[in-house]
Amino acid sequence: MIGFDYSMATAGVPASTIEEFGGRAEACNRMLEEGTGAGADFLGWVTLPGAVTQAQLQAMEEAADRLRAVAEVIVVVGIGGSYLGARAVLEALGDPFALLRRERSGPDVVFAGQNVSEDYLYALLVALEGRSVGVIAVSKSGTTTEPAIAFRILRGELERRYGKAGARERIVAVTDGCRGVLRELADREGYATFVIPDDVGGRYSVLTPVGLLPLAAAGVDIRALVAGARDMEAATASGVSFANNPAVRYAAARNALYGAGYKVEILGSYEPSLHYMGEWWKQLFGESEGKEGRGIFPASVTLTADLHSMGQYIQEGERMLFETIVSVDRPRYELRVAEAGDEDGLGYLAGRRLSEVNRMAEAGVALAHCDGGVPNLRVSIDRIDAYCIGELIYFFERACGISGYLLGVNPFDQPGVEAYKRNVFALLDKPGYEEEGRRLRERLRGL
Amino acid sequence: MIGFDYSMATAGVPASTIEEFGGRAEACNRMLEEGTGAGADFLGWVTLPGAVTQAQLQAMEEAADRLRAVAEVIVVVGIGGSYLGARAVLEALGDPFALLRRERSGPDVVFAGQNVSEDYLYALLVALEGRSVGVIAVSKSGTTTEPAIAFRILRGELERRYGKAGARERIVAVTDGCRGVLRELADREGYATFVIPDDVGGRYSVLTPVGLLPLAAAGVDIRALVAGARDMEAATASGVSFANNPAVRYAAARNALYGAGYKVEILGSYEPSLHYMGEWWKQLFGESEGKEGRGIFPASVTLTADLHSMGQYIQEGERMLFETIVSVDRPRYELRVAEAGDEDGLGYLAGRRLSEVNRMAEAGVALAHCDGGVPNLRVSIDRIDAYCIGELIYFFERACGISGYLLGVNPFDQPGVEAYKRNVFALLDKPGYEEEGRRLRERLRGL
Repeated sequence: MIGFDYSMATAGVPASTIEEFGGRAEACNRMLEEGTGAGADFLGWVTLPGAVTQAQLQAMEEAADRLRAVAEVIVVVGIGGSYLGARAVLEALGDPFALLRRERSGPDVVFAGQNVSEDYLYALLVALEGRSVGVIAVSKSGTTTEPAIAFRILRGELERRYGKAGARERIVAVTDGCRGVLRELADREGYATFVIPDDVGGRYSVLTPVGLLPLAAAGVDIRALVAGARDMEAATASGVSFANNPAVRYAAARNALYGAGYKVEILGSYEPSLHYMGEWWKQLFGESEGKEGRGIFPASVTLTADLHSMGQYIQEGERMLFETIVSVDRPRYELRVAEAGDEDGLGYLAGRRLSEVNRMAEAGVALAHCDGGVPNLRVSIDRIDAYCIGELIYFFERACGISGYLLGVNPFDQPGVEAYKRNVFALLDKPGYEEEGRRLRERLRGL
Repeated sequence: MIGFDYSMATAGVPASTIEEFGGRAEACNRMLEEGTGAGADFLGWVTLPGAVTQAQLQAMEEAADRLRAVAEVIVVVGIGGSYLGARAVLEALGDPFALLRRERSGPDVVFAGQNVSEDYLYALLVALEGRSVGVIAVSKSGTTTEPAIAFRILRGELERRYGKAGARERIVAVTDGCRGVLRELADREGYATFVIPDDVGGRYSVLTPVGLLPLAAAGVDIRALVAGARDMEAATASGVSFANNPAVRYAAARNALYGAGYKVEILGSYEPSLHYMGEWWKQLFGESEGKEGRGIFPASVTLTADLHSMGQYIQEGERMLFETIVSVDRPRYELRVAEAGDEDGLGYLAGRRLSEVNRMAEAGVALAHCDGGVPNLRVSIDRIDAYCIGELIYFFERACGISGYLLGVNPFDQPGVEAYKRNVFALLDKPGYEEEGRRLRERLRGL
């Protein structure tokens, strides 16, 4: 089970303050279950792990198997919540050096549609030459510019290669149940489809087909992932006391720290495979809380690497930071420091496991940063496998919902992303935006 | 030539304030050339691009060619400044999907020693099975724990495979000219070596063999890289007026913003290949400025991807942010939005280049963020090639030196990284640290 420890947060706030926030956090947790808070139309994720059925999992596994049978490379097209969750889990569970191997056990899974870089998509198309390809297109509306462009180009490539019928075998759409251009296109072309529930927002969607289908296609055990999330749903329920509820404790601790002036939270891990979990976490918390001029600024580091880059700042820069470390109890493999004399000064480590060195680095750094005025929180998971990553995902989602309510914002909307979208449509002269486009171009010329 | 524009910073500070800082920034720039500021023993990087000789470049190219001839995979072992520069340039210039291709034109270059993850190094060793391997070990002292462990293990693997003589052909050390355990080991074993100059700190070392040798081994045109840096050395010299000196202008603008309460700088780019340049930049600025309770907190985003994650926070969260966008004028390749009707709502974009959409996104986002209270700075480069990346590296280095002096700190030391190192040695019972180890363990038990 996930552990949460704030004993090293007391460099920033007394435990009694965190406990005071704890009482309010428990009330916020009840609001999530009872649907009495802001954004209650988007609480589907709360009960999602327990609600996923065997039949749904099986349907995804079968669709994934069909893709795996015809594709050496599967391109997952999506952005934001339709991208980060699958990518984060895949990087956590995959072999970081899989592509270095000549022989692979399953398809390579790559991502597109998360940018509009001409060079990125061009390089992908070149790399796909001579390899069989499948596509999973993930978009609720189908009109988000980046994935829509990438899907249009990739769909064209598949139809050119395999014909309409062949492309149909190789494209799966994850989209709205009845509306939107991707739904209409998929129905007309006869693509296999999976539904994004209406009551689950993008950043909370990794345990829907948005995340589960690409993960199944990559060979991830999605049943174990969901099982971990389900157990965490039970462990973070409102009936679980503050002392035993890691999501409530985390939400309370980080809001207590924010209240005391710690405005930047750095999520760190000593396992590089968790790097993209940090990216996913930044979206989850940043997009949920960063509104109305408020919210903790989320940043992330990968350790020990970033001790040699951000470490100096964390130790001695502006005192507005706290850290949350995702600590992994057990490594997957076993590797020891080789015996080789003491010429390199490492004799004292010979025969010891790298994970022991890593664990001592984690403890030593936490103490040093605390002493430097950076409160530390610790989330511990047993190991990096599908079950524990499922736990971790739900833990963060639940803590984020509670935390947003504690902060007093609606953690399920994102009103601030409309401003730039309107500007971009206008500058591209999208029909209906021409007048706005003229105005913006004039403004740019005046700068 | 690199352009720098602060016309959209005036959402945060008036141009007159930036100009005032400009006068002081010019004085700081002279201190860099005259060696009259703090940390003047570490100013070798200032004149490095102009000082690199043809013979030095040729020696690196020849060593790189020897490695390329015997190795399908080259493992670069290093951390911090001995890692981030080479990785950043390699990711900027390389094919993001090179490993997807069955046929490769040169060796695969991978990194180790930037963490002590047992799983990471284990997975690397497994992936190296059946492939010929070379190693470039980068460490000034040879005693930094992470790379020392990785090098000990990889050296053992090479000796096991190829014998002492074979390993000698496949290992190159980049280290101190006369001292340190890696120097001693290399001399005794007869490894080829390159020297890290004494007057260039880790985070300013990418244009020494620290960065250049791994890059040459990866097939990067290091002469073009150095040429770009050399031209930028001239363009940022103290004789160049404020109006024309991008490094002075950037240093002035960011310090003016910091003085006005903007404590977090987000470096962003619309080209995903520049993602690791952001990581390198974070070390450069964070480690140079984050001291004495001061300094701008450096964060980075990759756009447009992160508009769908950090975008909400940037638009509406705590108003303590400014953004610096690295803008790329021209893509390398050409790709257009396919013609395919208007069913997906993209008809208005058909036939237009992705780079046009990307450029409009950049402009639209800058306006939206400015309107939301996030001042924007813009660094523009012509394209992503070795020459322009060389320019960009030197531009940031120069601006960082100036900026640190403007802030009133020594931008060339990193006193804060000692605290955690001492703790880690103690917790691992390194000889001489046993008493401290007992004390720390007691403290951890008490938490």
